[in-house]
Amino acid sequence: MQEQGNWVHSVEMAEPSFGDNTADADRLRRALAPWGEGPPLLLDLDLIRRLPDLFRKSGYGASCCLFRDRQVQVVTGVKGLEEEGGWLGLAVDLGTTRYVLALIHLESGRELARLSRDNPQVELGTDILSRIHYVGDSRERLRTIQRLVLEDLREASGELCREAGERPERIANVALSGNTAMTHFFLGLPPKWIIREPYIPALNFPDLVSATELGLDFAPQARVMCFPGVGSYFGGDVLAGIISSGMNESEEISILVDVGTNAEVVLGCRDWLIACAGAAGPALEEGMSDIGRQAGPGIIDRVRFDEEARDFRVGTIDDGPPAGICGSGVIDLAAQLFRNGLLDFRGKFDPEVMPERFKTIDGIVHFVLVSGRDSATGEDLLLGQPEIDSLIRSKAAMFTILETITSSVGLNMEDISRFYVAGTFGSYIDPESAIAIGMLPDLPLERYIPLGNSSLAGSVRVLQSPEALQEVYAVTRKVTYLELNVNQEFMNRFSAAKFLPHTDRSRFPSQTN
Amino acid sequence: MQEQGNWVHSVEMAEPSFGDNTADADRLRRALAPWGEGPPLLLDLDLIRRLPDLFRKSGYGASCCLFRDRQVQVVTGVKGLEEEGGWLGLAVDLGTTRYVLALIHLESGRELARLSRDNPQVELGTDILSRIHYVGDSRERLRTIQRLVLEDLREASGELCREAGERPERIANVALSGNTAMTHFFLGLPPKWIIREPYIPALNFPDLVSATELGLDFAPQARVMCFPGVGSYFGGDVLAGIISSGMNESEEISILVDVGTNAEVVLGCRDWLIACAGAAGPALEEGMSDIGRQAGPGIIDRVRFDEEARDFRVGTIDDGPPAGICGSGVIDLAAQLFRNGLLDFRGKFDPEVMPERFKTIDGIVHFVLVSGRDSATGEDLLLGQPEIDSLIRSKAAMFTILETITSSVGLNMEDISRFYVAGTFGSYIDPESAIAIGMLPDLPLERYIPLGNSSLAGSVRVLQSPEALQEVYAVTRKVTYLELNVNQEFMNRFSAAKFLPHTDRSRFPSQTN
Repeated sequence: MQEQGNWVHSVEMAEPSFGDNTADADRLRRALAPWGEGPPLLLDLDLIRRLPDLFRKSGYGASCCLFRDRQVQVVTGVKGLEEEGGWLGLAVDLGTTRYVLALIHLESGRELARLSRDNPQVELGTDILSRIHYVGDSRERLRTIQRLVLEDLREASGELCREAGERPERIANVALSGNTAMTHFFLGLPPKWIIREPYIPALNFPDLVSATELGLDFAPQARVMCFPGVGSYFGGDVLAGIISSGMNESEEISILVDVGTNAEVVLGCRDWLIACAGAAGPALEEGMSDIGRQAGPGIIDRVRFDEEARDFRVGTIDDGPPAGICGSGVIDLAAQLFRNGLLDFRGKFDPEVMPERFKTIDGIVHFVLVSGRDSATGEDLLLGQPEIDSLIRSKAAMFTILETITSSVGLNMEDISRFYVAGTFGSYIDPESAIAIGMLPDLPLERYIPLGNSSLAGSVRVLQSPEALQEVYAVTRKVTYLELNVNQEFMNRFSAAKFLPHTDRSRFPSQTN
Repeated sequence: MQEQGNWVHSVEMAEPSFGDNTADADRLRRALAPWGEGPPLLLDLDLIRRLPDLFRKSGYGASCCLFRDRQVQVVTGVKGLEEEGGWLGLAVDLGTTRYVLALIHLESGRELARLSRDNPQVELGTDILSRIHYVGDSRERLRTIQRLVLEDLREASGELCREAGERPERIANVALSGNTAMTHFFLGLPPKWIIREPYIPALNFPDLVSATELGLDFAPQARVMCFPGVGSYFGGDVLAGIISSGMNESEEISILVDVGTNAEVVLGCRDWLIACAGAAGPALEEGMSDIGRQAGPGIIDRVRFDEEARDFRVGTIDDGPPAGICGSGVIDLAAQLFRNGLLDFRGKFDPEVMPERFKTIDGIVHFVLVSGRDSATGEDLLLGQPEIDSLIRSKAAMFTILETITSSVGLNMEDISRFYVAGTFGSYIDPESAIAIGMLPDLPLERYIPLGNSSLAGSVRVLQSPEALQEVYAVTRKVTYLELNVNQEFMNRFSAAKFLPHTDRSRFPSQTN
């Protein structure tokens, strides 16, 4: 079992003789049999071409790298035992706005370097929808959007390798996790039907793809494994998150929430998994009007109320002067406003408590989060009632989705032992604040576990362990996708969740104010 | 079972809905499941790219072509149900000097056209050995010799399609049988070690190869299945012969002999198969000195003795004036010479019986087969004692190989129910003559079955029936390869077989003269 722990296998074959005239390729196949059990083992013709000379030079010893998908295994690299350098893996979290790479030493599983870059496709559309519209029915544009990311990725992986003192030609296995649209763009698959009812991807289960065919200058036989999706709105990135959380192997019931404009939720344990996805609205990411931003320098990610000074204190990601606020900051802020009576039960501002903090512009009440004196821009950072309304809708949608999926299997929120919050943004959320506004259920705080970039972590795990890869496909077979019907019951739940924290206060016993 | 009879399957899929949001590629996979059981089913990315539009145009109906090797199945073609034209298969017998193509309508199994061409690699070397030496260690030369045959094949298949009123883009499945060296050249694999002890090919079990990658302009997903070999000297062409004979499915014991410079022999039944290969010498093909030729116009392929006229009568393949003699003609001639006392028991000419038929040139006795008056060349067609000696060695080698393989499993020649003679040349051999000179065993004539181009016939069968393809791999697992040790026992047998028909006349009871 120990030797099965990674993708690299050293083999020493008997040299050919009259008594054993097995061909070189078949000899390698036979030597790999202990690891090759199960799915068929494929050898590229280009690889076989090199074997006769390689084997005669190496005395029939070789260091081989394998990779697999749900159907086949592929020999992604063969070199003489004495040749220098190990086999490398590249983990890719292909996000809509950013992508992150991690370079993994396949034999030890060690991470050698990490790199994050903007997704260059942003220039053709900031979000998924606009990119899909950009492509339309054009083969040419599909190739353009595919090439954009492939060329950037090739450059970035070169940079990553230089940083680690390695060479891209050593990269044999690539694991990539992205949402369904990003995966389609990466593979050059037409994305058109993803966003049209009934939302049918071209493909949910990509087979291994040759890196060379994609134009990546990795090992000649390198393969890319793209995480499978469960549906148009439940892609490989979330599946990678499941793998990284380990919820699919736990006896206890967990829930995983990937919070964003779209919220993906998975509930379950090692015996069953149920998943759904729904629009949570832009309020939970950067879409918060004028001052809403993605997390970054000068961006407020936390807000506290200083009881002594009777004033709000903001913290920015780099402790620099504030220039905007990200989703987790907004959740903190709303919680503090509500606790201190500046927001009422309906989510409406009540300026009377601290009138100096409010400004009315064009008849709309605004809360002054940071005055122009203290802000990076020299202007007040303001949050208007419409932004708060938008947040309320988003948090109500999130809670409703959580409630719907939990009750669909006859469970209560309290039955959830672990509550994973995934996604870069999700990791910054303070569960206490999220509970305060009724976005997340009122569970003991220790049950909340931030996962960070769980999409990347899932890809890394797959490069570290063949067993983790098999889990990926096991999970896709296990997951039931729950189509969220926006019916009367859903709307009733949604309406009840549009209060702070909820119309039914008994659901939030910890919130006593 | 009826529907499993060929490689083409029509599927009608349910259109996607909210209740069934399976991706297009996975939907196709599911629809093909009844035929896709067993090996994993692979879909090319290029194919998946076309599916969304194709399915929406065709109302989710499709005509699919599948193909497989021993490990995987591949969807080699998908088109709308209403699109015109059927899927085609191309059978290729890739011989060292000639190759033959047959175009097969995959749904009906019907042969539409056939074409035969010279193997253009002849310009780089007439035989296997010289071509392997030509390639040496050069990648460039390997590519050259590969491209030669691929380009010719592309042109020839275009011609074949025109002849049949079809288009090459309809060719989805290609089955190719060739000896080990020809298969290596075709796939661009280094052939160097095939001819060096202990004779190790780069590969015995080729996976399916993309026709597009080979530069063939067939259907975009077309695949080439190359018949596997059992060893350097027992290649895919002989395996195709086994499949075409059906000996691997028979309860009775059969033997298959592919007669040529190298003789490949298979003995067995549905439960076991044993194979060997050995040098029989050039005498059985065109290598018969001055007048030896491959079968063709003006070539003598049969010789009879007219008892009344007390003279020899020759027949040519096209009944034209004789210009040379092929292997089957030489066997006939030797049998007639021996029967009529012109050759003695030791295989030496005895000119005294018909002195007018003999000429002594440079001290060497020659038999005048055709005088200059009647020949196409205006010169005598002569056969010298050395040529007869060479024939005797070849026939003795052949008989010894047959005797060795039969006795290796404790059988007698008489236990053989069917004796298949394969190869273009083999089909022309008159068993009666071959028995007369002791080249083939003295079995009842009806047990001898000429197979014609059994290599091509095997490829055709594989295109007509998935079951036949599975038999191919079943046979490779069943075959035991017997390494012919040229030891004392072999040499004793060989010496005994160097007489006409044999030192032990009791083995040839039908030969009473």
